[in-house]
Amino acid sequence: MIITIVGLGLIGGSIARDLKRTGFATEIIGVDNNVDHLKRALELGLADRKAKLEDAVSQADIVVLAIPVDKMVKVLPIVLDHINPATSVTDVGSTKKVICDSIANHPRRGNFVASHPMSGTEFSGPDAALEGLFEHKICIICDQENSRPQHMALIEKMYHTIGMDIAYMSSDEQDHTTAHVSHLPHITAFALANTVLEVNDRKIIFDLASGGFQSTVRLAKSSPEMWGPIFKQNQSYVVESLDLYIKNLEEFKQSLLNKDEKDMYLLMHNANRIKEILNGENTELVRKKSTTTKLYTK
Amino acid sequence: MIITIVGLGLIGGSIARDLKRTGFATEIIGVDNNVDHLKRALELGLADRKAKLEDAVSQADIVVLAIPVDKMVKVLPIVLDHINPATSVTDVGSTKKVICDSIANHPRRGNFVASHPMSGTEFSGPDAALEGLFEHKICIICDQENSRPQHMALIEKMYHTIGMDIAYMSSDEQDHTTAHVSHLPHITAFALANTVLEVNDRKIIFDLASGGFQSTVRLAKSSPEMWGPIFKQNQSYVVESLDLYIKNLEEFKQSLLNKDEKDMYLLMHNANRIKEILNGENTELVRKKSTTTKLYTK
Repeated sequence: MIITIVGLGLIGGSIARDLKRTGFATEIIGVDNNVDHLKRALELGLADRKAKLEDAVSQADIVVLAIPVDKMVKVLPIVLDHINPATSVTDVGSTKKVICDSIANHPRRGNFVASHPMSGTEFSGPDAALEGLFEHKICIICDQENSRPQHMALIEKMYHTIGMDIAYMSSDEQDHTTAHVSHLPHITAFALANTVLEVNDRKIIFDLASGGFQSTVRLAKSSPEMWGPIFKQNQSYVVESLDLYIKNLEEFKQSLLNKDEKDMYLLMHNANRIKEILNGENTELVRKKSTTTKLYTK
Repeated sequence: MIITIVGLGLIGGSIARDLKRTGFATEIIGVDNNVDHLKRALELGLADRKAKLEDAVSQADIVVLAIPVDKMVKVLPIVLDHINPATSVTDVGSTKKVICDSIANHPRRGNFVASHPMSGTEFSGPDAALEGLFEHKICIICDQENSRPQHMALIEKMYHTIGMDIAYMSSDEQDHTTAHVSHLPHITAFALANTVLEVNDRKIIFDLASGGFQSTVRLAKSSPEMWGPIFKQNQSYVVESLDLYIKNLEEFKQSLLNKDEKDMYLLMHNANRIKEILNGENTELVRKKSTTTKLYTK
């Protein structure tokens, strides 16, 4: 199967590695408007050859779009214009509503499967691409009723092949949930980095930063070019999530200012509950984890 | 050398492991008012034998206090009352000002070396004790002018033996710096956990939590019994740090609300600078890293 990957950075490059390794792709055509990235991706073997966007998508069985979400809304309609009518198209953007809206009335809407494979690192570019990045992670597929069943089936098969479980949601639900679980943590890390950089000199931060600080601030290393457009497209839910977070911080601060020990302990013990949830210490959840598809409905 | 360790949890237990392994301690006497912890610590070989506090400290060459900082201010004067006049005493508390104040006028103040070995994990108790936890990490020693040189030398040697570099500060400076680099990240993680727990059900968090969320929220698993007293003792600096952090979050939120792209990118690119600092991409810093003592002065 010929797969065209548009954008050969961290996510596109990692998908390429796994699709090649598993034999799911017999040929990968690479597209990237960053010439250095494209050259490097070919050197690394992330793509077998390069082509111009229109040519590359017209030859593919599957097109995977792995570019920043502001570029996605511009490129996706062009891709649908140029594909063979049988080709399946998917994207990997962290926002879904604006992207789905951008091609809502396209005659080939049914060829598109809106998806968000939830994995990544704080690094970017082709050299950041990793084998097995998606193993045991969740791919959210949105608004499945708008995709034709053949395209759904093939894209699901592709994500299963690289080791992912699939969850189904509306694009609105995905944007809401992802605001809290993914977009907010990035902003909390950016703000933590800025706070510490504001008050301490480099030498002290470097020397004193323990593992705790490093893991909490890790996402502050993330690419502004990737995350800026995500925050913008998901503005209202991100602001809602930030407001809730600031409210939680204010509550903590108040318990400290009031020397209200009981309240402060309550807040910390409540937060501790994240431990069992992340460890999956719940048989029902663990059992569910072994199935490969999940349906979330309100 | 006989070393008495009071508190055989994550930090005390890890110090015990390394002091035994390196041969620095010929015998470790364990003290813990939690009988289950004490029993478990003996099973794990973290201590060779147990004793009552007063007996244990009177027999030791070094006493290490590794208990929550609220307990520290109560136990430290008792320890100084009962030691042999030649014994060195140190603590591992994350706050230093309140602890140093608590024994400022004790006739054996000079036997005490106030220290903060900066390492840890989100786990607690004797089973969390790890070999090599302190390797290549920094131990802050405070108010060194108040410790007698023989006690300084022996405690420095002990921390060097378990692989630590030493930085010297006043207890006030350490509390200020640590508020930003360590105490704040714990509160940001507690608040992040509470925010996500408030809006999402367990199932969705468990399924969707990617590596990014997990590392940012990791410290929310930390022990309230250890961290509550730290936040209280360092209240004014922690509140100062929280205020700065909330200001940074508000700034980010405003850039989003105003759709002020330039401002948002500026904030993210500034935060990215944490990358080079944490990686030590600065020759001067890397060179300094190879020495074993650092002196920070205002």
